[in-house]
Amino acid sequence: MSQTKYTIGVDYGTESGRVVLIDVADGREVAEATHPYANGVITDRLPGTDIKLEPDWALQDPQDYLAVLEQAIPQVLKVGGVDPAHIIGFGIDFTSATIMPTLADGTPLCFLPEWRANPHAWVKLWKHHAAQPEANKMTDVAQEMGYTFLERYGEKVSSEWTLPKVWQTLNEAPELYEAADRIIEAGDWIVWQLTGQEKRSAGMAGYKSFWSKREGYPPDDFFNALDPRLAQVVDHKFGREVYPLGSKAGALTTKAAQLTGLQPDTAVAIANIDAHVSAAAGGIAEKVGRMVIIMGTSNCHLVTGETEHVVPGICGYVEDGIVSGYLGYEAGQSCMGDHFAWFVKNCVPAAYTQEATARGMDIHQLLEEKAARLKPGESGLVALDWWNGNRSILVDVDLTGLLLGATLATKPEEIYRALIEATAYGTRVIIENFEKNDVAVEDIVATGGLPGRNKLLMQIFADVTGRAITVSGTSQGGALGAAMHAAVAAGQAAGGYESIVEASQYMVHLSEQVYQPNPEHQQIYDQLFAEYLTLHDYFGRGANNVMKRLKQLKAQVRAAGQPQQMMNHA
Amino acid sequence: MSQTKYTIGVDYGTESGRVVLIDVADGREVAEATHPYANGVITDRLPGTDIKLEPDWALQDPQDYLAVLEQAIPQVLKVGGVDPAHIIGFGIDFTSATIMPTLADGTPLCFLPEWRANPHAWVKLWKHHAAQPEANKMTDVAQEMGYTFLERYGEKVSSEWTLPKVWQTLNEAPELYEAADRIIEAGDWIVWQLTGQEKRSAGMAGYKSFWSKREGYPPDDFFNALDPRLAQVVDHKFGREVYPLGSKAGALTTKAAQLTGLQPDTAVAIANIDAHVSAAAGGIAEKVGRMVIIMGTSNCHLVTGETEHVVPGICGYVEDGIVSGYLGYEAGQSCMGDHFAWFVKNCVPAAYTQEATARGMDIHQLLEEKAARLKPGESGLVALDWWNGNRSILVDVDLTGLLLGATLATKPEEIYRALIEATAYGTRVIIENFEKNDVAVEDIVATGGLPGRNKLLMQIFADVTGRAITVSGTSQGGALGAAMHAAVAAGQAAGGYESIVEASQYMVHLSEQVYQPNPEHQQIYDQLFAEYLTLHDYFGRGANNVMKRLKQLKAQVRAAGQPQQMMNHA
Repeated sequence: MSQTKYTIGVDYGTESGRVVLIDVADGREVAEATHPYANGVITDRLPGTDIKLEPDWALQDPQDYLAVLEQAIPQVLKVGGVDPAHIIGFGIDFTSATIMPTLADGTPLCFLPEWRANPHAWVKLWKHHAAQPEANKMTDVAQEMGYTFLERYGEKVSSEWTLPKVWQTLNEAPELYEAADRIIEAGDWIVWQLTGQEKRSAGMAGYKSFWSKREGYPPDDFFNALDPRLAQVVDHKFGREVYPLGSKAGALTTKAAQLTGLQPDTAVAIANIDAHVSAAAGGIAEKVGRMVIIMGTSNCHLVTGETEHVVPGICGYVEDGIVSGYLGYEAGQSCMGDHFAWFVKNCVPAAYTQEATARGMDIHQLLEEKAARLKPGESGLVALDWWNGNRSILVDVDLTGLLLGATLATKPEEIYRALIEATAYGTRVIIENFEKNDVAVEDIVATGGLPGRNKLLMQIFADVTGRAITVSGTSQGGALGAAMHAAVAAGQAAGGYESIVEASQYMVHLSEQVYQPNPEHQQIYDQLFAEYLTLHDYFGRGANNVMKRLKQLKAQVRAAGQPQQMMNHA
Repeated sequence: MSQTKYTIGVDYGTESGRVVLIDVADGREVAEATHPYANGVITDRLPGTDIKLEPDWALQDPQDYLAVLEQAIPQVLKVGGVDPAHIIGFGIDFTSATIMPTLADGTPLCFLPEWRANPHAWVKLWKHHAAQPEANKMTDVAQEMGYTFLERYGEKVSSEWTLPKVWQTLNEAPELYEAADRIIEAGDWIVWQLTGQEKRSAGMAGYKSFWSKREGYPPDDFFNALDPRLAQVVDHKFGREVYPLGSKAGALTTKAAQLTGLQPDTAVAIANIDAHVSAAAGGIAEKVGRMVIIMGTSNCHLVTGETEHVVPGICGYVEDGIVSGYLGYEAGQSCMGDHFAWFVKNCVPAAYTQEATARGMDIHQLLEEKAARLKPGESGLVALDWWNGNRSILVDVDLTGLLLGATLATKPEEIYRALIEATAYGTRVIIENFEKNDVAVEDIVATGGLPGRNKLLMQIFADVTGRAITVSGTSQGGALGAAMHAAVAAGQAAGGYESIVEASQYMVHLSEQVYQPNPEHQQIYDQLFAEYLTLHDYFGRGANNVMKRLKQLKAQVRAAGQPQQMMNHA
């Protein structure tokens, strides 16, 4: 019997890094460890300073990413009892459009005393939403100049993507922009730290920086039209080389091997987008037309297709972007678990907290139990799931949350359920939009942190969409997917696989848990969905831009009230 | 020096009865006592039974009203140390359109074993909202038949009023309707219990049963057109005699004197509407064009005028209805303190409850403190204050609450403040509607439970309306106003007063607390009010009837799920 081979996958999420040690032969998880980021998501003040951030900012500290490698990898080695010599590959996935400025040697500017007090020196996290003006301007200029590349991205630039954030840095901190030799995705930066090589991922460049296999990045003329200082952004800050998913970026450097306790010759895969590797772990490579929904703090909807179709309002489609040989379509909802976390933190009364404690339950469990006793339509509530804007299909971070139908008899579990339902309506809008534009959605697999934890949520998604939903067999889809790509990067000769399709055959397992739509519920949800759609279009498509006006007024009022803090930024 | 004279006022509110003992010479409060209703507001099950009520029902137990007399009057006599011989008058006010069926001798049907298990035998409280179909039908029939009396009532019949509730009783319990010799306002019933005489109040008949000084009740033809069985409703269930405010209904019966500890010859005033006596205590009789807003669980806006103007969407106007010699205009908001009570019960997280406890504060105080730190516009939220429907100016109980603008950063105090602001916008709609229809609002006095308790609320009302608001000098406006009317019923000869105008000169005191609008806030609230108005009209005037459809669906779903309980009603 041949020696068992293993790969390591690291899933860099919003709050923590999760590491898994995987048996390559069957995808079995041997050990896992999670390391939270010490500085978490920085939205209020720069760590260790009085420097206050403006609304919509969200930063991170690259040191927290390195700490995951240093702490959690030795831990899985120890728990798994695996000899590092049998680890053939190392793969990471990362939240995407999470970017940082560095020197030519990869040192983040925020590590340098001269830049540390400047918020722009830090990592701008995917959900940093302060580059909306730049995003809007980019959409306008691309349209005016007749560029068609935005067709691949739902026609609109999202403030969550890479280029608006880069431009915001230039606008608000030009000297820092100048000092940055590179601006890089955090995922590509980790690969650089591991291998000593700056090798950028086709997935991240494709989905977040408008790169395509056929056309490369948008032309310099486009960037010049945005701002002449941006004309050379690709050559000066990115470079034009990008590498396909599953390819090998290099081997671990001696330093990285020491940091992690792995062997220096371990193959390291090109970085991948967190949601996309989760889709791999959810079996997206097994079947064209399978939609994998990654349900975590936000929702990500991925589906592959054989032919190219322009789909308005999606995040984008990239050839070879998810599975080689196919178009990889992506849509998403900016807020999913985040809704429920917000609700639990801000809206659940003490009596419920006490009941949960007394019964030894998590508060989410208690809310789920109470909400599950309600019937569809019974609360009289409908919500718009826009607490963090709308990613698809309206592509507008300035949209905000709405709750309608409250009475003096409305109970917390009714609001909780209305929020779940709203996210399900949002997903139905996305599915119907794909199908209307000839991208078939044949079946649905749910993965990520939520599906295994909340049966009510899964049933509501099935009832609202009218489709069966299969739950993925792993709750660590991101890290498993990264480990699958590590096996491909290691290659067949080393005991890995030739392609992600091949790796999927051995390493992917779906659970037997399939949520079937309840026809009675479906019938009621069809009515509620019609109401949702009317509100969605009224507030989301310009008939009443009250949400945007309120956000603008809020920004004005806050700016007027904070002369002190604004000066600190200068 | 002549002997000091006193009157007693009893304010029958939604949850309790409040009794005050007042010095007639200067309106000074000598003693007060509050007695809560043991059965409170009955919305779930009939007391002592398994009989479940349908949604929108709100009942009370007349026994609770008698308990107030028995418990609280002896208490104020004792605390005040006043000889009953020096008490010249007794007055009560009551929530209006709070009605019950009785035998010819005044015995409530719900006191009788044969009717006790029938929900229709109990008191239908003002906020019983289950007669909406009847209210709608009445509006339609009045319009079709060309009757103009509805012009006096904002053109629409509210389900909160007396006649729809009477008709609902007939529709759903015809045998009980038949068995009822009288159907009577709870306030008039208490006067009957005290004096042995069924003497109905012009205020209640005028505002809640379409009676007018010039035309009396609507003609029998109208009732016949509604339902032939209703044709004789006035003669058979009400009688046509009504008595002006401040007139004497009679003297205490021996039995009532024994129950209360008062003397049998004490003058008892005709019953009054709770909000209207509060307005008297707020000085409405001192100045034409003074608006008194009674802020409690709901809001009531009263203003007098010298000339008659049809004002759409108000609750009504009645000649001599508030102050003799003037038109008394009334508008209202169905939900005020109730919003905040709902919010505190359902939406305030444990961390806040704990902070309030640790700091020895009431949770409302803590929320007020936190909300007061926010600037107008800073939360990005706007709400529609329709958690209990809209009384004015849309007159529609099927409208529901809306919160718009929520983000993941939204805090409980922001929602709390948005609810306060929404009630202030609602009041501004009412004021502007009066002025647009030539009923001047010269100055504003606020009274009721809230103005003395919540400075932030008062400042927001001033900022949103752009008007100075003076706070009434009493927190017991209802009971004081009842005691003022008692002094008028007793008459000058007995040491009382000739009229409510004269009583006001001596007995009314405004506080020195005047809230002035802040011009900076006003400017921002003008923008927010414009957003409120757009939403108000969109959801309230038929462009999108989603709220009504959701309520309908909710009723269907609940009905489908409760065959057992529905059968219990039969």
